[in-house]
Amino acid sequence: MNKQRIIALTGGVGGAKLADGLMRAANAIDLTLVVNTGDDFNHLGLHISPDIDTALYTLSEEVNPETGWGRRDESWSFMQALKQFSADTWFLLGDKDLATHVIRTQQLATGQSLSTVTHALAKSLGLAVQVIPMSNDTVRTWVHTDMGELEFQHYFVREQCKPKVQHIEFRGAAEAEPAPEVVQALQDPNLGAIILCPSNPYLSMAPILAIPGMREQLRAAGVPIIAVSPLVGGQAVKGPTTKIMQELKLPVSALQIVAHYAGLIDGFVLDQRDAHLAGQINIPIITIDTFMQTAEDRIRVAEETLAFASTLKQHK
Amino acid sequence: MNKQRIIALTGGVGGAKLADGLMRAANAIDLTLVVNTGDDFNHLGLHISPDIDTALYTLSEEVNPETGWGRRDESWSFMQALKQFSADTWFLLGDKDLATHVIRTQQLATGQSLSTVTHALAKSLGLAVQVIPMSNDTVRTWVHTDMGELEFQHYFVREQCKPKVQHIEFRGAAEAEPAPEVVQALQDPNLGAIILCPSNPYLSMAPILAIPGMREQLRAAGVPIIAVSPLVGGQAVKGPTTKIMQELKLPVSALQIVAHYAGLIDGFVLDQRDAHLAGQINIPIITIDTFMQTAEDRIRVAEETLAFASTLKQHK
Repeated sequence: MNKQRIIALTGGVGGAKLADGLMRAANAIDLTLVVNTGDDFNHLGLHISPDIDTALYTLSEEVNPETGWGRRDESWSFMQALKQFSADTWFLLGDKDLATHVIRTQQLATGQSLSTVTHALAKSLGLAVQVIPMSNDTVRTWVHTDMGELEFQHYFVREQCKPKVQHIEFRGAAEAEPAPEVVQALQDPNLGAIILCPSNPYLSMAPILAIPGMREQLRAAGVPIIAVSPLVGGQAVKGPTTKIMQELKLPVSALQIVAHYAGLIDGFVLDQRDAHLAGQINIPIITIDTFMQTAEDRIRVAEETLAFASTLKQHK
Repeated sequence: MNKQRIIALTGGVGGAKLADGLMRAANAIDLTLVVNTGDDFNHLGLHISPDIDTALYTLSEEVNPETGWGRRDESWSFMQALKQFSADTWFLLGDKDLATHVIRTQQLATGQSLSTVTHALAKSLGLAVQVIPMSNDTVRTWVHTDMGELEFQHYFVREQCKPKVQHIEFRGAAEAEPAPEVVQALQDPNLGAIILCPSNPYLSMAPILAIPGMREQLRAAGVPIIAVSPLVGGQAVKGPTTKIMQELKLPVSALQIVAHYAGLIDGFVLDQRDAHLAGQINIPIITIDTFMQTAEDRIRVAEETLAFASTLKQHK
């Protein structure tokens, strides 16, 4: 019997944790990750894909367990030398991590697509999971703030999310197409479910869904689409989700997340700390502990989400 | 009184040692280094200028004293990560060293000239010496061998100079121009002498001299031009000079070096171990110990060369 394929849409650290759980779940599945590239940027002439790297490093156990991004057992000689040359040092580039950026930049320059390059990196890291950028076209998240328009990493890392967000723009999205491997995975007859990982809905998932045809193709796949709540007890576990929702004048609540994904998702995984909201959600839900601190937590959340998916059919 | 300007043409490790001695000589001089860029190459998408870096690192005391190239107190995490990705690892790139290549590549990509980029790097490293690439145009040394045509670093590093040299080509030289700063330095009214450092005459000095107009402009400066012998007791101190001279069917002798530079140089610094050849050299010479093992050796050879220069006038 063929294994079920699961497609997971993911952004940064939180999404990668669930992706890791899905990869390690007892259920034998073929896992495809569709990763946000709106956070990609060119820095010191290097093409950096932070969310792809977080996915690759997390799933290959190469990630720095302290930070959730970058590589473990990292050294920082390159950064020290950059300082000497008065180059930008606000974006941390570890010496090992740098190899990923240099190789990616070089291979893109030879005309390879980002999905081809990503596939090769995943393979080198020993991953059996399919890791695909949402698009091979350039989509860049720009954050319009009270300090002006900021490229995502400038907002997120350099300015540490301090500027007040007015609105978020996915530059290039209107002209972008889903990566061909995304389309292919969506047509897999063994596709069982699509999972929206608990990444920031406004910064990490929105760029993926902003690609023309993406939402339609996800729906057209005819399998249940489930979002895992990025809020735990009405708060983001990590990152600026809460702050951004406030600045965008949105109620900081799992209900808002459900509303945000309305028309796309068939089911919602609610955190047990938000159980009091269950009655106000008019799509199928499960209420579980979604907080992922340990490897076991990740697997448990993944298995409970997969079990939930198997009970659902896509609503029409 | 204005200080005397000295221009030194230099290649790799041996040349950088004399350049370092010239910088530290008791004589108060303004030093301009004109550096071979025929060894430059693109590796992993990075623009690498090995001779410029050897000059920069040597003069700033950043050089690895064990090897004479690369940076001291270097770490190698990047190389380890490259191996994991099955990328080329035959050219060693230390983590600190990498910052130089990344910055250079990025700045060249923004349209800056190699001389502008080199000037900024030298300044960051605290150098008062002027370090100029021979040209801002692309000149690449190709070594035609019994194993086929090899780009210089492929011959020199990857193949460890093992292939038998048939002839050496400076691709692009015919269309190249001296860097504007070279022309400017040659027109400095305080110019006192031009020194050809003891770098490989065929691999390191020849690309500089292959640039159309370079020889003529050196001569037109009207100051004595002196070559320091790269042979010590009829042998190269380091590198493939001896092997290449044999393969090119040239007598391995200081006499051959003098013949090679005939019409260009006004004086020659002969190593004392080759003193028996002095009678056969028909231009002014000094015979000294040119072997530079210590910092004191470098300064001594530099000071003796400068003293020699001050006794000479350019022959017409």
